[in-house]
Amino acid sequence: MIDHTTQERPQAAAPAALYTQVQQFYAHQVGLLDDLRAEEFADTFTADGVLVPSPAASPVRGRPAIAAALRAAHERRFGTEAVRRRHWHTMLRVETRPDGALTTRYYSLVLITRPWDPAPVMGPSSVVEDVLVHESGQLLTHERRVTPDHLSF
Amino acid sequence: MIDHTTQERPQAAAPAALYTQVQQFYAHQVGLLDDLRAEEFADTFTADGVLVPSPAASPVRGRPAIAAALRAAHERRFGTEAVRRRHWHTMLRVETRPDGALTTRYYSLVLITRPWDPAPVMGPSSVVEDVLVHESGQLLTHERRVTPDHLSF
Amino acid sequence: MIDHTTQERPQAAAPAALYTQVQQFYAHQVGLLDDLRAEEFADTFTADGVLVPSPAASPVRGRPAIAAALRAAHERRFGTEAVRRRHWHTMLRVETRPDGALTTRYYSLVLITRPWDPAPVMGPSSVVEDVLVHESGQLLTHERRVTPDHLSF
Repeated sequence: MIDHTTQERPQAAAPAALYTQVQQFYAHQVGLLDDLRAEEFADTFTADGVLVPSPAASPVRGRPAIAAALRAAHERRFGTEAVRRRHWHTMLRVETRPDGALTTRYYSLVLITRPWDPAPVMGPSSVVEDVLVHESGQLLTHERRVTPDHLSF
Repeated sequence: MIDHTTQERPQAAAPAALYTQVQQFYAHQVGLLDDLRAEEFADTFTADGVLVPSPAASPVRGRPAIAAALRAAHERRFGTEAVRRRHWHTMLRVETRPDGALTTRYYSLVLITRPWDPAPVMGPSSVVEDVLVHESGQLLTHERRVTPDHLSF
Repeated sequence: MIDHTTQERPQAAAPAALYTQVQQFYAHQVGLLDDLRAEEFADTFTADGVLVPSPAASPVRGRPAIAAALRAAHERRFGTEAVRRRHWHTMLRVETRPDGALTTRYYSLVLITRPWDPAPVMGPSSVVEDVLVHESGQLLTHERRVTPDHLSF
């Protein structure tokens, strides 16, 4: 279930420096995800980071487990098939918690392209809710909850 | 018809603080739209706000009428069917008018997901042109003109 | 082939003013591209600008050649058919080179809408890598390398 409480607060815009830093963090993180650079992707999480890939799934905890889960999910869906996978994020919201951590919420869409076929296959569309923290001046994902739209009913 | 005159001016970049504020305003507004929180969505318009949902449509004026139009459009298209609807905005332009109001222009794409089917249905793609104003430090939509691509010929 | 070296560097966020300027440059440039305003689109390149529309393609050099290539590609794909074409850019990265030029990397997706059909046709999905430079305070594309996903295997 998606927690809609953030939508009930009056709009509060994150400062430009923070908002664009988060945008760029995701552009970097998504590149690692889409190239299936699983260990480097896991390194964009905190050491105790948690990934919840769908509401019914068990949380995945820690970088080695996150890297393994990413590889396993890819293999389950695609086997050894050659694909280019792209994650598109839009409609990003960023809020700062009293403890300094950031909560974000955005739409994410997966596009899959196969060799020689210019028409990508689309899906799923998801809502993603992250907690981001700064460590040594860099952003890291502390927690990610993914709610695929088709599993949100 | 889409007014292309904004494209003829030399590029003028809105300041970062304003541009990211507008990005976050839309992320907030779209969440209300996609959750069909019709009254809250209407509250992101000025009291005298106008919505023109397609070039041939009559303008919808005022918050109660905007909320009613949103519900009616959803019911016309989906009835009581369970759907998750997502609006994706990209390629946002923001310009400041001499009177301080903002004119924006962006692409908007609708994605519809049904229960258990991970592949969203896409469309329509539209160009949206808004006039935004600041009221008590918050952005509100004063006017919105939507031109669906398939009705733009 | 896509050069992945930018992904190996630690994340470095461009300042907000620069990042939002680049976002707005692309929103402006894409409007000209999608309206097939070929000469105005070519004018968003430097006089010695280079466009490499796919890895196997010959580089197109200079504004007149870029405008001609744009028209030719459109005619090859669509002939005289009426279409609305939209380019969606997401997941933008911006880095500053030591010489002051910017290197960018983003995903780009083409959506095609035909009259009266609200469902766009999608594709191709590409990774675009640009070199941008400032001339007289304006951004211009000095070099663009497009790698369509379906030709990237």
